[in-house]
Amino acid sequence: AKRPTLQTVTLIPGDGIGPEISVAVMKIFEAAKVPIQWEERNVTAIQGPGGRWMIPPDCKESMDRTLIGLKGPLKTPIAAGHPSMNLLLRKTFDLYANVRPCVSIEGYKTPYTDVDLVTIRENTEGEYSGIEHIIVDGVVQSIKLITEDASRRIAEYAFEYARNNQRNSVTAVHKANIMRMSDGLFLRKCREVAENFKDVKFTEMYLDTVCLNMVQDPTQFDVLVMPNLYGDILSDLCAGLIGGLGVTPSGNIGANGVAIFESVHGTAPDIAGLDMANPTALLLSAVMMLRHMGMHDYGKKIETACFDTIRDKKVLTGDLGGKSKCSEFTEEICRRVRDMD
Amino acid sequence: AKRPTLQTVTLIPGDGIGPEISVAVMKIFEAAKVPIQWEERNVTAIQGPGGRWMIPPDCKESMDRTLIGLKGPLKTPIAAGHPSMNLLLRKTFDLYANVRPCVSIEGYKTPYTDVDLVTIRENTEGEYSGIEHIIVDGVVQSIKLITEDASRRIAEYAFEYARNNQRNSVTAVHKANIMRMSDGLFLRKCREVAENFKDVKFTEMYLDTVCLNMVQDPTQFDVLVMPNLYGDILSDLCAGLIGGLGVTPSGNIGANGVAIFESVHGTAPDIAGLDMANPTALLLSAVMMLRHMGMHDYGKKIETACFDTIRDKKVLTGDLGGKSKCSEFTEEICRRVRDMD
Ligand SMILES: CC(C)[C@H](C(=O)O)[C@@H](O)C(=O)O
Ligand SMILES: CC(C)[C@H](C(=O)O)[C@@H](O)C(=O)O
Repeated sequence: AKRPTLQTVTLIPGDGIGPEISVAVMKIFEAAKVPIQWEERNVTAIQGPGGRWMIPPDCKESMDRTLIGLKGPLKTPIAAGHPSMNLLLRKTFDLYANVRPCVSIEGYKTPYTDVDLVTIRENTEGEYSGIEHIIVDGVVQSIKLITEDASRRIAEYAFEYARNNQRNSVTAVHKANIMRMSDGLFLRKCREVAENFKDVKFTEMYLDTVCLNMVQDPTQFDVLVMPNLYGDILSDLCAGLIGGLGVTPSGNIGANGVAIFESVHGTAPDIAGLDMANPTALLLSAVMMLRHMGMHDYGKKIETACFDTIRDKKVLTGDLGGKSKCSEFTEEICRRVRDMD
Repeated sequence: AKRPTLQTVTLIPGDGIGPEISVAVMKIFEAAKVPIQWEERNVTAIQGPGGRWMIPPDCKESMDRTLIGLKGPLKTPIAAGHPSMNLLLRKTFDLYANVRPCVSIEGYKTPYTDVDLVTIRENTEGEYSGIEHIIVDGVVQSIKLITEDASRRIAEYAFEYARNNQRNSVTAVHKANIMRMSDGLFLRKCREVAENFKDVKFTEMYLDTVCLNMVQDPTQFDVLVMPNLYGDILSDLCAGLIGGLGVTPSGNIGANGVAIFESVHGTAPDIAGLDMANPTALLLSAVMMLRHMGMHDYGKKIETACFDTIRDKKVLTGDLGGKSKCSEFTEEICRRVRDMD
């Protein structure tokens, strides 16, 4: 029999608890015999010619070749002028769509059940343009930049995502009653794209109304698409509904076929190296990655093992309400994965 | 004995269910013998010299004299170029602070209990500047304007509110990691003002983090102060936590001693005139107004009667889960108010 060719994935373990939760994911992938191989790369921003901040060339080269990355948390640099690594990665690979499925996890109690929605955030412009001025002393302006191209691109991504993932509706979230031109342009592009996806229901809603309805009944939402800042807010709000960043996966989709999947929680330096971290968010991000790569069966298997472990409540890390170590939680998931064979 | 002089309050009943919930509030105030008299005024925007939109002069004149207004919902004008009445009122009276206490109501079930926080929103600038441009075809910018004066003013209001209302802490909500100059200025002013209020704890938090933590455990928050758009979002989100706009009061504090209290729900044209509306939001806004006017005892009495009626569950309007008419709900509150004498 021919050995299947292994696809390569760039692994960026990150800082703090990053390395240990990455090890956890690798173990579980091994147990599930996922046909991929990891190529580990480090990212710490370095300064290139002219003082420009960039990610290390060997990481860039790896991503350009593999096109798929899995990334743990990166510490926020404190040096003045040092860019956020997350923003730098978004820029480097033009990661224009941040996708966050928020699904209630059975057995992990929150005030809500049956949440099952996806936030899709435009990740390159809007309030994140970085353009600001002092007009006169004591008067500052920040510029929110909305373009037709980026709006169309994210709208198309949202509708395609809905179609490919058996989702019924896309809601555009906006404040076009206030920002008539910028959010108005975003909204217009969503409407135009909606015309080409007659099989997907399209609605539009004010951001404030979405927030109000979201905390009252999140089950009414399906796929939500929105400009950058609104996405920053709503994606975290929705993560809160299902238990926080420790259990929420995230994917960043870029131009030219690049995609980076990542846990969006912090580096938790206080527990780093103590075998106490919860690898769930990174693991579920890796499951999203498998689906993105078309490996649905492997994804399903690992996801099921993870959810079963949580529902079972016997082997849980501290933040999930248990007393087990990261390695024990990982081993329990591996065991369940192996049992499925 | 000298008859007490009655203070006059401008009443803007508004549209849709506005008039009937205004009648409800007036009846309850009468039952409680609140020493105020109402001066009813209409607001529909009219066009002054040069086509400038303005509120009717007799309403402006009344507010300028009484300084205190109570306002029902206003319908959103659909004519192109017609301004939002709410925005016009904010501008006319420089209503710079929108204050929304969100307190869980016993007996009215939501996913949360013991919410007790106040959002204070800067109401005049930020993303609501109204300045937008087309840069080139397909590229639009909106300007977020942050000034030192407005930031200091709202920060001072928040700290004074905290001090005067026995609140322990003020949290400044921002995205100064992204909008370093504009939100940075806002945050700097909050820090400066905090120096003068050593008795009130000051913290700062990213908007996304606030949203995430808010839905996980709102009881950790006290007074929150923030720029315009963030306030628009958070105030509605928090209203959702305690049961929605039908039970959430709101106050707008202006320069020169003006203040307008209002229910922030819609005009509900579908049930207007049918004696089905819930007057709670307007009533609780009127209670806020009484406290603002220093009439704490009257405020307490009415608030207690309203909360007791809701907790008792016997006479409730449809949206609160009952079958009673607006007039019956109102009469029940009146009865309880009278019984307290
Ligand atoms: C770290 C920060 C730059 C970032 C953002 O505001 O986008 C974060 O909140 C996120 O959502 O990735
Ligand atoms: C009606 C609209 C202009 C308004 C706003 O966005 O400020 C509303 O949402 C509010 O909160 O009063």
